[in-house]
Amino acid sequence: MTIEKYKIEEYNHQLMQEHQRKLDFIKDEVNGAEEILQKLMDFQVAIPSWALGTGGTRFGRFGGGGEPRSLEEKIEDIGLLHALNQSSGAISLHIPWDIPENANNIKALAAQNGLRFDAMNSNTFQDQPGQQLSYKFGSMQHVDKAVRRQAIEHNIEVIKYGVELGSTALTVWLSDGSCFPGQLHFRRAFQNTLDSLQQVYAALPDNWKMFVEYKAFEPNFYSTTVGDWGQSLLYATRLGEKAYTLVDLGHHLPNANIEQIVALLLMEGKLGGFHFNDSKYGDDDLTVGSIKPYQLFLIFNELVEGMDARGMNHATDLGWMIDASHNVKDPLEDLLQSVEAIMLTYAQALLADRKMLNEAQLQNDVVAAQEILQAAFRTDVRALVAEARMRAGGALKPLAVYRKEKVRENLIKQRGLKTVATGL
Amino acid sequence: MTIEKYKIEEYNHQLMQEHQRKLDFIKDEVNGAEEILQKLMDFQVAIPSWALGTGGTRFGRFGGGGEPRSLEEKIEDIGLLHALNQSSGAISLHIPWDIPENANNIKALAAQNGLRFDAMNSNTFQDQPGQQLSYKFGSMQHVDKAVRRQAIEHNIEVIKYGVELGSTALTVWLSDGSCFPGQLHFRRAFQNTLDSLQQVYAALPDNWKMFVEYKAFEPNFYSTTVGDWGQSLLYATRLGEKAYTLVDLGHHLPNANIEQIVALLLMEGKLGGFHFNDSKYGDDDLTVGSIKPYQLFLIFNELVEGMDARGMNHATDLGWMIDASHNVKDPLEDLLQSVEAIMLTYAQALLADRKMLNEAQLQNDVVAAQEILQAAFRTDVRALVAEARMRAGGALKPLAVYRKEKVRENLIKQRGLKTVATGL
Amino acid sequence: MTIEKYKIEEYNHQLMQEHQRKLDFIKDEVNGAEEILQKLMDFQVAIPSWALGTGGTRFGRFGGGGEPRSLEEKIEDIGLLHALNQSSGAISLHIPWDIPENANNIKALAAQNGLRFDAMNSNTFQDQPGQQLSYKFGSMQHVDKAVRRQAIEHNIEVIKYGVELGSTALTVWLSDGSCFPGQLHFRRAFQNTLDSLQQVYAALPDNWKMFVEYKAFEPNFYSTTVGDWGQSLLYATRLGEKAYTLVDLGHHLPNANIEQIVALLLMEGKLGGFHFNDSKYGDDDLTVGSIKPYQLFLIFNELVEGMDARGMNHATDLGWMIDASHNVKDPLEDLLQSVEAIMLTYAQALLADRKMLNEAQLQNDVVAAQEILQAAFRTDVRALVAEARMRAGGALKPLAVYRKEKVRENLIKQRGLKTVATGL
Amino acid sequence: MTIEKYKIEEYNHQLMQEHQRKLDFIKDEVNGAEEILQKLMDFQVAIPSWALGTGGTRFGRFGGGGEPRSLEEKIEDIGLLHALNQSSGAISLHIPWDIPENANNIKALAAQNGLRFDAMNSNTFQDQPGQQLSYKFGSMQHVDKAVRRQAIEHNIEVIKYGVELGSTALTVWLSDGSCFPGQLHFRRAFQNTLDSLQQVYAALPDNWKMFVEYKAFEPNFYSTTVGDWGQSLLYATRLGEKAYTLVDLGHHLPNANIEQIVALLLMEGKLGGFHFNDSKYGDDDLTVGSIKPYQLFLIFNELVEGMDARGMNHATDLGWMIDASHNVKDPLEDLLQSVEAIMLTYAQALLADRKMLNEAQLQNDVVAAQEILQAAFRTDVRALVAEARMRAGGALKPLAVYRKEKVRENLIKQRGLKTVATGL
Repeated sequence: MTIEKYKIEEYNHQLMQEHQRKLDFIKDEVNGAEEILQKLMDFQVAIPSWALGTGGTRFGRFGGGGEPRSLEEKIEDIGLLHALNQSSGAISLHIPWDIPENANNIKALAAQNGLRFDAMNSNTFQDQPGQQLSYKFGSMQHVDKAVRRQAIEHNIEVIKYGVELGSTALTVWLSDGSCFPGQLHFRRAFQNTLDSLQQVYAALPDNWKMFVEYKAFEPNFYSTTVGDWGQSLLYATRLGEKAYTLVDLGHHLPNANIEQIVALLLMEGKLGGFHFNDSKYGDDDLTVGSIKPYQLFLIFNELVEGMDARGMNHATDLGWMIDASHNVKDPLEDLLQSVEAIMLTYAQALLADRKMLNEAQLQNDVVAAQEILQAAFRTDVRALVAEARMRAGGALKPLAVYRKEKVRENLIKQRGLKTVATGL
Repeated sequence: MTIEKYKIEEYNHQLMQEHQRKLDFIKDEVNGAEEILQKLMDFQVAIPSWALGTGGTRFGRFGGGGEPRSLEEKIEDIGLLHALNQSSGAISLHIPWDIPENANNIKALAAQNGLRFDAMNSNTFQDQPGQQLSYKFGSMQHVDKAVRRQAIEHNIEVIKYGVELGSTALTVWLSDGSCFPGQLHFRRAFQNTLDSLQQVYAALPDNWKMFVEYKAFEPNFYSTTVGDWGQSLLYATRLGEKAYTLVDLGHHLPNANIEQIVALLLMEGKLGGFHFNDSKYGDDDLTVGSIKPYQLFLIFNELVEGMDARGMNHATDLGWMIDASHNVKDPLEDLLQSVEAIMLTYAQALLADRKMLNEAQLQNDVVAAQEILQAAFRTDVRALVAEARMRAGGALKPLAVYRKEKVRENLIKQRGLKTVATGL
Repeated sequence: MTIEKYKIEEYNHQLMQEHQRKLDFIKDEVNGAEEILQKLMDFQVAIPSWALGTGGTRFGRFGGGGEPRSLEEKIEDIGLLHALNQSSGAISLHIPWDIPENANNIKALAAQNGLRFDAMNSNTFQDQPGQQLSYKFGSMQHVDKAVRRQAIEHNIEVIKYGVELGSTALTVWLSDGSCFPGQLHFRRAFQNTLDSLQQVYAALPDNWKMFVEYKAFEPNFYSTTVGDWGQSLLYATRLGEKAYTLVDLGHHLPNANIEQIVALLLMEGKLGGFHFNDSKYGDDDLTVGSIKPYQLFLIFNELVEGMDARGMNHATDLGWMIDASHNVKDPLEDLLQSVEAIMLTYAQALLADRKMLNEAQLQNDVVAAQEILQAAFRTDVRALVAEARMRAGGALKPLAVYRKEKVRENLIKQRGLKTVATGL
Repeated sequence: MTIEKYKIEEYNHQLMQEHQRKLDFIKDEVNGAEEILQKLMDFQVAIPSWALGTGGTRFGRFGGGGEPRSLEEKIEDIGLLHALNQSSGAISLHIPWDIPENANNIKALAAQNGLRFDAMNSNTFQDQPGQQLSYKFGSMQHVDKAVRRQAIEHNIEVIKYGVELGSTALTVWLSDGSCFPGQLHFRRAFQNTLDSLQQVYAALPDNWKMFVEYKAFEPNFYSTTVGDWGQSLLYATRLGEKAYTLVDLGHHLPNANIEQIVALLLMEGKLGGFHFNDSKYGDDDLTVGSIKPYQLFLIFNELVEGMDARGMNHATDLGWMIDASHNVKDPLEDLLQSVEAIMLTYAQALLADRKMLNEAQLQNDVVAAQEILQAAFRTDVRALVAEARMRAGGALKPLAVYRKEKVRENLIKQRGLKTVATGL
């Protein structure tokens, strides 16, 4: 299913008067609106292929319907999102769930939908049917060299698939760790993991990056072998200049100050990318911005400041991806909400008066510093983001169009009610 | 020091054109703006007398200057706040820090500043000079009946002072608990506390309420005898219909869903009042809305919904108070920011389309429910709150007036640089 | 597979000399050793039918082998455990995973293995194949009366199965709650749930108990409708005297003082039962005693003290069950470790000098109180627990016998390597 | 006050028969008892000078009595502890609370009490009377170079005092950080801090170490500039080979796996020392081993394993110190309990069968690995620790002697009831 451009324009047309009023107001309110609009148009968030189906917990899964049954249908889904919001122009694949049987066809299909291939994701946290050795006790950390070798080769294979599709990054998330005290020899686990990562790193093409993702806990509940930013930074530093730390918002201990971590990783030149989601308790994988939108703003505030200080390009120099699980929402609607939350927050961070903030900081004027940040956060930037979307060819109100066009109903008709997206 | 009405009007005048533009816009955006404005004008947040000086931690205290040296000067300070924002029309006293030597004079002074006396606060978490028995091992929970008696009598004395001043509520926050396993016999501690509270309750005038505040930890670090809403509700239920639970935002375990607690306490008819602040780790007592503004909105969302369902008056049927500690900010500036955050959030909660929300909930339309709440939260209501303030005689930009009028500099001139507010 | 009594006796015989030396020592150390031994022999912990297979997380499951393929085989497995430790003499069934096709046969089989039927568990947190209405948005809280009715009827059916088997309790764990702010109307959810529970309660036989289990989060990640002990107590109180709160050690917010909750629930006469496990981050469902053994001791300390104060029988007046997930261990070995940890901790709690503790508490002698508790905890009671086990007909070292008898290898031979226990 | 050797011997004599019985038993139980006894005798834990008086919280302080009024009296107190347990043979001073007016006299007094001077502690988290510039907004992170210079010079002065006394380490704990979003420019704060530390490092004598302590939060409640082990390691690495990370057990986010951090820091050759205490919620500074004794065991397990792997001397190659606050206990009793807990745990860690553990780990035998660790932890090693103490000239039961000798009563007689230890 596709939504034709003219349809979107029709919907936009109906909202235009109202939109223009709001846009005029906000453009009066902020400095450099045009520059912000351009940045918003440039900013793209990758959609992971596994986020297109209904997620689940260890207690169960309540499927939706019309879920994509193949890589082609996943690309089609993201194409739909991108048609609506023009901010989801990339797809992040997961191997083995998304092995492209014919890379050229897949590339063509993606291009047709305006999508490029973002970071590739390997999987050594599950056993696949027919897999020779089990990852029950870890993969790259494993005491058995043969298991480590299997994990290394899998990652190298993922790179190979990525090269065919034009991706330039590998994200390695290891669930390696332990469930019980005593299970693991921590230093050996670290060294085995480092050695394994080094072998994968050696296979990385010159123009590729490797993202080393960390996570505090789950599915291992006592220790994780890449457990926090400090550990990830140790690995990334030893690996070399193509290795970076990847931050997933849900992968921290309670109350962690993630924005400070982001600032320090940028300072070290080692921040590689981001997995967006939101959470209240653990790695809840909820819709971006649904629980702690101000934290998200503070993170974007550091991202904008820190990237600008290094002369980095917001749109291209870090990997941006959503990584959420859609247990009770239509996945596509959830993704529209998530991308919207990211764009709104990015816009607010762009508004923050950085010169005044810096001055307040130099004066220890804590009250003024707070006022400056909150002034940006309290600004209603919905019209700005909508304008950027419309200028890029998207819908003023993507979710409304999605519903009016009965996208889900149509997908169910096409694909059936009981489909389960590959990998779920 | 006072700020004359005409001064405030002058400042407002300079901002009027800009304000009007914003106000016109937001009035177009929302339904029932006039009704919201009235509610905002009616809503008053009490300022506790101890929040007017620089706070500290166990590691130290970095005093500011010009802190109030007497109850009279505390009233003066709140009078200043109220002159600026017209939303701080109440003061919450703490005994023994604020014993009124001449109640009539104090009442007259308060009235002159437009202030009424909110809930009275007792203190059995510290030993006062000359106090006969120590609260080192608790007060109302104490194994020694004489200590309990002393605590009971202190509370009855606090009621007496309150009656003289026209207050109608007693807030009992007990730090009672234990630091080590084994220290306390939990059931006995509960029963002693209940018995003590009952004796205080018996001395409560007919038109008074008693608020039983709970706190998860600190200053006791193993157990607290009124440790969560469940315990507070047990006490309040046994005490009788004049006893209620008081919620302080910083008094919970990590990740607690406070808005659900609020909803349930309203359901039970047992929510009595609120202590506003914000926090990241524990009872950090930071400026309201400075860390988790969306959580504050969700709480106000339940407050508005739940109070309306019971036909309660937002302005008068619950006790609203700020309870924060100002370690690195000018306390008065911090309070202006806190009240502003409360008013903005209350306004946003009033905007939420409750009918549509209810419908979405009945349809299990999770996406729509989120859209409705976020639409309210993303609305920039600063002009509405400013308008309400101005209509009531306050300043469009209280903090700016405070700074332009050099209030702190003047207070320092008057009171000196090294003053320490009583109780700190 | 069964382990013959004479085999166990043979193994015990080999260890007897060493055991006797340790036993003599510990009997010299403690007062009332014989009484403690009797209590240990009386104490039985129920095994839930779902704990006999390898558990998993939302990321995957690494199966073991030889898992029970039927209710009969589950009973056989628990029979094996009980033969070894003589402390696992009860089974807790889950419907629909364990529907007994012929109750009489199942009862006979259980009796043959020395097992009785502990609390029955209903399941409205998953959709079963062929189920008419979905629990995606809750069961007893659901806005749709028909869904609530379905959940009520399911619970009544579970009671019916339980009656046939001789069980006398129903455990209701509801995963009902919400994943996003706005999704749920909290009060309505509470009232719907209460109403549903009341209808199930009405179907409860006179000699039955209903356990209302609470959980802070997961699988819902924003709110849970029976979220903490305070909420559970509200339900249990409204339901009536046959309704009780059930405590699962992993179902709390970080840092909760569970032992205080236990003491208060006993005070209220509303503690019904226990689900044992251990955890570091959330509901990690790890082996009992593997992470925080001292917390377990403090809980048992309150259980013993509180039950004794009410004249309750330790062995029979509360429901004791293990509820863990065995992701990286052989489930039967894990259960042997869990039961062992429970018995050791119970023994230590029985040792604590309650008279001296009470005296220390009355003197506020915090140091002495800690000494008394730690003296009990630091005592090596392994020989006591082993002796109790042996006297009851079990093995001095159950785990060693399990391994020497190659139980798992035999079960794999019998049942195959790829079996998956029903319900997993 | 001092306790004469012969007194201690008399008390020991009375307990000898009972002790011998227990000792014989445990010596039969464990391998290499004599070697363990020697290690226990060698192991010394430094007492910080500020732990000798009653601590407090921001809510108040409930003084004890007989607190030391001078550095001399502090040394006397630690001398008492050391006479009793022979494991507290070092003192850790804090400047400016403990400025030695005559270093030679102080050194002689310490030597007389069998004490050496452990790490020196600087203080830039408070303003001292007469101090020129304030640390309200940080010290080494401060935007004002003059404040940083003052902090640097203070640390250099602390080194100077330490050199005079024979100390060889400086512990730098910075409370630097921020209370509100926006207050701090994170990268600048880091760079200023690094630069300041480098200047202190430059003044470090060749045989000295610098310990960079980290803390997650408090007294700053939004960010801390040396906030976690990752940040501390960054500083320590840039500073050079004399700089190390110092771990305080209470300075982590909830649920942190501290033992893994310890293992990794040892792997990096950057673990410098330890501050022992215990906690449930935050930096509660409770008695060591009073809340999570098994966590302490797991940490010691990594310490022993990791130090042995590097050929480090347990007794001398890391800095061991207690850092607790005694709010409700007699400080000296609390310290006796803390040292006892450390020695017991160290003994248990020494017992663990490392060869079998390593084998279990190499086999992924999680069950066996847990059994091995728990076997050590469940062993009652009190007689071993008591024996080591007695052999070194200390008391079998230090706390009992302390009470029987009425130490506190005597100190109160000598020093008065209302003394407050310097620094509190």
